[in-house]
Amino acid sequence: MAIKYPNPSMNNSIKQDNHFKSQGMIFEHSLNVSNEYYRSRNVALIYKKPTPVQIVKVDYPKRSSAKIVEAYYQTPSTTDYNGIYKGKYLDYEAKETIKSFFPFKHIFPHQVEHLEKVQKLGGIAFVIIYFRTFNSVIIINIEDFSNLYHNGDRKSISYEKALEIGKEAKLSYSPPINYLSAVDELFKL
Amino acid sequence: MAIKYPNPSMNNSIKQDNHFKSQGMIFEHSLNVSNEYYRSRNVALIYKKPTPVQIVKVDYPKRSSAKIVEAYYQTPSTTDYNGIYKGKYLDYEAKETIKSFFPFKHIFPHQVEHLEKVQKLGGIAFVIIYFRTFNSVIIINIEDFSNLYHNGDRKSISYEKALEIGKEAKLSYSPPINYLSAVDELFKL
Repeated sequence: MAIKYPNPSMNNSIKQDNHFKSQGMIFEHSLNVSNEYYRSRNVALIYKKPTPVQIVKVDYPKRSSAKIVEAYYQTPSTTDYNGIYKGKYLDYEAKETIKSFFPFKHIFPHQVEHLEKVQKLGGIAFVIIYFRTFNSVIIINIEDFSNLYHNGDRKSISYEKALEIGKEAKLSYSPPINYLSAVDELFKL
Repeated sequence: MAIKYPNPSMNNSIKQDNHFKSQGMIFEHSLNVSNEYYRSRNVALIYKKPTPVQIVKVDYPKRSSAKIVEAYYQTPSTTDYNGIYKGKYLDYEAKETIKSFFPFKHIFPHQVEHLEKVQKLGGIAFVIIYFRTFNSVIIINIEDFSNLYHNGDRKSISYEKALEIGKEAKLSYSPPINYLSAVDELFKL
């Protein structure tokens, strides 16, 4: 697998904008905290998968701890998050945009394909997008996402279109992103 | 989280036995190949989670590639493998022993707890153990595993006991470990 940044949108960005990175971390962190909330209430068991790292060289400075001294980020084979909710398998990719639309190039084609396969096998599969400008989190069923994605006419989904075909998740204090309520509505669970 | 080897059984082993490591890799590799086989036939989507790594320092020798120069293995929060099978969420931990029994210390308590939670939420949860001496792979429903694990009288499961309460998976050429047939029988799917 190619050695790249885990996020395709970062591969062509020369500048490492720390502000952007830390902002991106906030969305991910909010999702993780929401998943902790769901786990603590036995509502769902959903975890973020670790970023895959190709380990090239390991030192053993002490016998008890291995120190990795050369490694590279790998392209994830699947999506960011998966787990169990209402007895079902649930799988999603989390994305963020500062624009008024979500560019398709920000998601790997094999991730879309993975979500389509999950859906075909009877799982709950979606993309969750944080439109930062609107402070709005929207989940889109992979079926609807794929229709636009494979259409070919457009290279992005506008915020208006996302609102129309998806469901907006409530943002609150606890959980920060109550996206499972939106999942209930969107997938009629 | 503590910085340790990803496998608890390795934490106290001073000697890095390459033979043992490569043998262990064969079981993991066989599981991965079996999962590829299931995926290619649209039977199940099951992946091994990447080993979590705590990244401390990253260099940017070229603008296009990030090189991790200091990182440590982390203790995994959950289990090795999860995915979707027959519309259900499936989750398991893969272990190997060269002994005629499986020592409980080779699995993290929080991994047993995780599998118990999966089972309570309606998922398929088990431990899959390769008894290398017998060239035998056995899957044990987490419910049965937990009964012995929490019993306290024993610190291991003998191969005979594993055979009695679990199901042996057929080993063949393709898939190398046909464990989903054993899952069908054990969980009456």
